[in-house]
Amino acid sequence: MGSDYRIRCAPDGLITDTRRRVKVLDCTIRDGGISNAWQFDHDLVKMVFKALVEANIDYMEVGYRTTPGVFPDAGPWRFCTEEDVRRVVEPGHIKLTTMVDIGRITETEIPAKADSVIDTIRVACYAHQLDEAFRICDHCKENGYETFLQVMAVSDVDISVLDNVLRRAARSGVDAFALVDSYGALFPYHVRYLIRKYKNYVGDNMMVGGHFHNNQQQAFANTIAAIDEGADWVDGTIHGIGRGAGNCPLELLLFYLDNPRYDVKPVLDLVDEFASLRESLRWGYHLPYAITGYYNEHPREGIALMSTPDRYKCRAFYEARVGKLAEREG
Amino acid sequence: MGSDYRIRCAPDGLITDTRRRVKVLDCTIRDGGISNAWQFDHDLVKMVFKALVEANIDYMEVGYRTTPGVFPDAGPWRFCTEEDVRRVVEPGHIKLTTMVDIGRITETEIPAKADSVIDTIRVACYAHQLDEAFRICDHCKENGYETFLQVMAVSDVDISVLDNVLRRAARSGVDAFALVDSYGALFPYHVRYLIRKYKNYVGDNMMVGGHFHNNQQQAFANTIAAIDEGADWVDGTIHGIGRGAGNCPLELLLFYLDNPRYDVKPVLDLVDEFASLRESLRWGYHLPYAITGYYNEHPREGIALMSTPDRYKCRAFYEARVGKLAEREG
Repeated sequence: MGSDYRIRCAPDGLITDTRRRVKVLDCTIRDGGISNAWQFDHDLVKMVFKALVEANIDYMEVGYRTTPGVFPDAGPWRFCTEEDVRRVVEPGHIKLTTMVDIGRITETEIPAKADSVIDTIRVACYAHQLDEAFRICDHCKENGYETFLQVMAVSDVDISVLDNVLRRAARSGVDAFALVDSYGALFPYHVRYLIRKYKNYVGDNMMVGGHFHNNQQQAFANTIAAIDEGADWVDGTIHGIGRGAGNCPLELLLFYLDNPRYDVKPVLDLVDEFASLRESLRWGYHLPYAITGYYNEHPREGIALMSTPDRYKCRAFYEARVGKLAEREG
Repeated sequence: MGSDYRIRCAPDGLITDTRRRVKVLDCTIRDGGISNAWQFDHDLVKMVFKALVEANIDYMEVGYRTTPGVFPDAGPWRFCTEEDVRRVVEPGHIKLTTMVDIGRITETEIPAKADSVIDTIRVACYAHQLDEAFRICDHCKENGYETFLQVMAVSDVDISVLDNVLRRAARSGVDAFALVDSYGALFPYHVRYLIRKYKNYVGDNMMVGGHFHNNQQQAFANTIAAIDEGADWVDGTIHGIGRGAGNCPLELLLFYLDNPRYDVKPVLDLVDEFASLRESLRWGYHLPYAITGYYNEHPREGIALMSTPDRYKCRAFYEARVGKLAEREG
């Protein structure tokens, strides 16, 4: 369990046994969809479903559930109507999740579990949207869904505010609570501290998980740190696809977990497909994302710069952030 | 010093003060050159020199010093004649290093320090070449050079062999000894263990450093782990250029160090130049490199696969390695 047999220069047992019990959630279509307005065609999503089932991944997130019409130009996986989802999945093979975000759906638009192939709803919110988030979480729980709460962008939340969020999450009755590094700002020592803190607050009756962005090439390293501290599940995406710099690559995670429960091969078979998407969508390591990550801000201005031919002319982009920080620090 | 002021959700003091005293060695031209047969033109190398001087980086490695003619198709930075080096640098602004490797140079071809602009020689060897390496190290020391010993590919060296290497290094009189993860196989918990071990063996009179490859997106995370454990210097390259998956990106490292001694801006100015090289040389995260890294082997077969159009069709490439490992384990 704690063996690391490939590495000859270090003793067994440096690795923790938590590596073999953590669960894996794939959010390729949901988070990857942010980079192409959820325009994956149904056949590709069906291929992803089949690969994840064969790989025995624990959860597949098929997209966001959103009020119809809220994003006029977005593809089907921003809305996840039952009809679209049923075209690409067969129920009963893998837990299926959708994400909902605050202000873009009302409780009444979430069907009863009996009428849906979805097993799990992940409610994403910012710290100041907690009241609304709990209302939706309660609705999901009452309707029979496994319910995860994802408080985003915590690197930009003050400690005392986060403490309050955690106290409320602990009392909320949700099934799981996630550490979410939306900006790709955290380093492994932050993640260790935060996963420990999350687990201490929410106790044994609630799962704790992690979702990390790759702006500073830390998504996988942060995922390892979270697993090491006992995270119950972590997120990954095929070839790391995702908004901006992207996420923890699922294939790297599966290698690392080295768990006979999973089979990485069906995922490897899909990398070729996603590598060609990477050429146009440009997730991965790019300087504008590294700068927004280091300066702990939303990637939107980095994404805007990346869409221009001057994407790597970053001195002014960098200097603006040094200036802003100096101003904030006074 | 221990402050991490951008991150609001974590207390100051998670970060170690070693971050502010570690030194930085840039090996853009030397390690990056492995990916283009050291064919950087003199103007580019001059630009790198100027940027590193302005950034106040501690060391610049300008290439390998090699017996003329050993690599018939290699460019000037595989040989680093005094003439070539003097065309691109002005002495006295930054410590200049060259690397030598065993079997590709004889002691007599290394000029006396008085006849060279080079300050520091890094002697790279495999564990079984230690006798020859020490002979060259002694020659370099006697000739007035600062001398670093780089034992490569330690992830593939048995613990008892490494212990012996470290005992001999400790007695050798070299100025510095490096942890080198040539295969990109190590994770941060390995690096913590190994840097601690290296420091314990060699004591306070010898510097300990780290050089990490990015096959599994761990080069920067491993560099952070090494710094955290008190490494005296670490290697980086502009935009992460290097053999296979490449190295720790210098710009990420400088952001992280947040040390007023360094100025990241001249390095940022060069990323545009290197990003266009990345399109043809293809370092960075690619599946064949991830697989050789995870399976702890030299990247050469990954590099060969990357040069074909089927570079991401990796199932057979992966299965061959699973098979090999099963055979080895018996």
